[in-house]
Amino acid sequence: MKFSNYFIPTLKNNPADAEIVSHQLMIRAGMIKQSSAGIYSWLPLGLRVLKKIEEIVRQEQNNSGAIEILMPTIQSADLWVKSGRYEDYGKELLRFKDRGGREMLYGPTNEELITEIFQSYVNSYKDLPLNLYHIQWKFRDELRPRFGVMRGREFLMKDNYSFDLNEEDAKISYNNMFTAYIKTFLKLGLTPISLRADTGPIGGNLSHEFQVLASTGESTLYYDKELESINPENIEPEKLQSYYAAVDDLHDKDNCPIDEKNLKISKGIEVGHIFYFGTKYSEKLNANVQNNNGEKIPVHMGSYGIGVSRLVGAIIEAFHDDKGIIWPIQVAPFKISLINLMPDDKNCKLECDKLYEIFINENIDILYDDRVCSIGKKLSDNDLIGTPYHLIVGKRDLINNLVELKERKTNISKKLTPEEACNFLIKQINSKK
Amino acid sequence: MKFSNYFIPTLKNNPADAEIVSHQLMIRAGMIKQSSAGIYSWLPLGLRVLKKIEEIVRQEQNNSGAIEILMPTIQSADLWVKSGRYEDYGKELLRFKDRGGREMLYGPTNEELITEIFQSYVNSYKDLPLNLYHIQWKFRDELRPRFGVMRGREFLMKDNYSFDLNEEDAKISYNNMFTAYIKTFLKLGLTPISLRADTGPIGGNLSHEFQVLASTGESTLYYDKELESINPENIEPEKLQSYYAAVDDLHDKDNCPIDEKNLKISKGIEVGHIFYFGTKYSEKLNANVQNNNGEKIPVHMGSYGIGVSRLVGAIIEAFHDDKGIIWPIQVAPFKISLINLMPDDKNCKLECDKLYEIFINENIDILYDDRVCSIGKKLSDNDLIGTPYHLIVGKRDLINNLVELKERKTNISKKLTPEEACNFLIKQINSKK
Repeated sequence: MKFSNYFIPTLKNNPADAEIVSHQLMIRAGMIKQSSAGIYSWLPLGLRVLKKIEEIVRQEQNNSGAIEILMPTIQSADLWVKSGRYEDYGKELLRFKDRGGREMLYGPTNEELITEIFQSYVNSYKDLPLNLYHIQWKFRDELRPRFGVMRGREFLMKDNYSFDLNEEDAKISYNNMFTAYIKTFLKLGLTPISLRADTGPIGGNLSHEFQVLASTGESTLYYDKELESINPENIEPEKLQSYYAAVDDLHDKDNCPIDEKNLKISKGIEVGHIFYFGTKYSEKLNANVQNNNGEKIPVHMGSYGIGVSRLVGAIIEAFHDDKGIIWPIQVAPFKISLINLMPDDKNCKLECDKLYEIFINENIDILYDDRVCSIGKKLSDNDLIGTPYHLIVGKRDLINNLVELKERKTNISKKLTPEEACNFLIKQINSKK
Repeated sequence: MKFSNYFIPTLKNNPADAEIVSHQLMIRAGMIKQSSAGIYSWLPLGLRVLKKIEEIVRQEQNNSGAIEILMPTIQSADLWVKSGRYEDYGKELLRFKDRGGREMLYGPTNEELITEIFQSYVNSYKDLPLNLYHIQWKFRDELRPRFGVMRGREFLMKDNYSFDLNEEDAKISYNNMFTAYIKTFLKLGLTPISLRADTGPIGGNLSHEFQVLASTGESTLYYDKELESINPENIEPEKLQSYYAAVDDLHDKDNCPIDEKNLKISKGIEVGHIFYFGTKYSEKLNANVQNNNGEKIPVHMGSYGIGVSRLVGAIIEAFHDDKGIIWPIQVAPFKISLINLMPDDKNCKLECDKLYEIFINENIDILYDDRVCSIGKKLSDNDLIGTPYHLIVGKRDLINNLVELKERKTNISKKLTPEEACNFLIKQINSKK
């Protein structure tokens, strides 16, 4: 993509109302624009990242055996009255009446609606287990929306729902999703820490939350340092769930079950939450299945959420420096910034056009900064945007058949021939696909 | 995908409340489920088709030079008060107050919001032309939602907005989008007919609507028969727009500008609408740009909409028979149904497993019907679902090393060796990629 044909409205200064670094950087890099309190438009760069994260979440859901559907944003209040949550949920539930006077709401979560879908079609243990997910916009009317997409009112969430015949099977589904979550966050380049959690307004008996490490995170976590190097492929979920981890107000130094030398303290951000709540909704909404004795029994359910739009902010909190964002290559909006320092110079333009075509033909997402503007603005904009590799073409280097290759993570540059730079980048980027 | 691991809840009988064939077939094929009046959940099969259509629409938008963003579903009423539409729009606009008492709405369209985005960032003719699109759920609180996804309340729309310095440039953008629309509908396997149209509540001076031919369509169209075989690559938009076409109540037999032998009459369904409305919104919302004389002038705008979820219904209206849906291969949820008539037979299972793996390795979307159920149900379910090719494996044929290959469009079958069938299908399907 050529920068001059694209729409990346970067800003030089931090917006006054942005309190945390991810919010500041998303505004400054032209990723989002607030349209009203806690509600954002996703500009091209932000949307690219959001979609890459969404796709990684989707792939891991599919790998886990979950099936994708899409429930609507607007729901009738009827089912929520039946489940008891229409009263209980509080003011975060956005309620309104349609033109016919029917009570409706903008779904903050979908336990009721999915239970109704299940009970409409499934009535035998033979069709279990079933695990349905969707990735849809939700609305929670937060009293004080803030921190950009980290605590917005309209946000994108992946939520899924497991259906099993009994508690034993439901726990297999729960463990399966637990492992899928660890894999998802690792694929996003993050370090997940799982913690036993309260079940809160979803209800139920078993719950974990997932935090990812970020030095600017909101929570302080105490955990077994082995959690930082776990490979979910090689480890049983039960074992994985047994590692010690606690947020600060639940950590009791004197009764900590692990040795102090194995204990690590870091900041984290919550990005996912999973629940097993048994028959809480199936009983109220009549979602029964016949077991192999012909008896009708309420189905056992779990629900599982990942904040997809929140992850954009969380990843920035985890990966940035004082110049801007440092995207993990998996979710980067572009893998490479090709920076033409002298677009008016014939040789620079020729070389850049040639390099651009090479990467386009390799199917590598590349941002070609062909803008006529100051060198300083060009370099600082691309640092801010945070593409993993910057390929910088200047007039003087080019005389010696050299270009500059900068890795954004380390900000270390080296001079290479254009051919060497291409070969290195193509190899690096394809190895991470 | 194995049918037994998937979730396609087919129904034998037509639902009582579905008036038109696409609505009936979508319910029966387990594509959608109504959750409240005019609001649907998309079940796995329906979602697959919706996403394929969305992706074709997206690709043609990208090819046209439009840039993707994503605006939120919920908007503040403020901008609509400024544009004058908060009063004008009528009861189809879903209005409500948030917990802080602020007036909000669920966007039925996005002229106001996009104009505000534009005016926040763009202020020079040098940044024009600009064309921004998004694909997002909309809500229109229809008095009588009906016809399934054809006239729902919550629906998926691609809408985009062009920004130009003056009327002349704006018409280039308009014509560019006109051609992109013709290409989009052709790529979906449909026959588009464009008609001059009233501008309605969007306002403005120039407008076309796009209908696609379907024998069960809602409108009767009179048009130059050449429109059925147009190639938009080879024809100027102005010429394309000059062909005669009119809906029945605007067609005047005695004053028709074309010869009766060139006139064709068919039924159609509206699937797109484009508008040039000049400075209507930019004046009210202060979206000005500096021209090359340094004067600030209001930007010229157009807006362009395609009903993405409506297209699912429209395609079914265009392509079905009394057995069910007949998907054009480009949007089919799966290209092939691999139907094992005897899943309990060892040889049938071995052969099917082998065939399944071949297509999976070829990266071809295939639905493997491995269910243990009656042969009649299997065949009729797959006819209903409407995958383009059915590869049917039965015990008796297999003794002679034969399988049955049925083309859903013609319902004509032939017996081939498994190898011949594979080669034919891989060639056919890859040629349409």
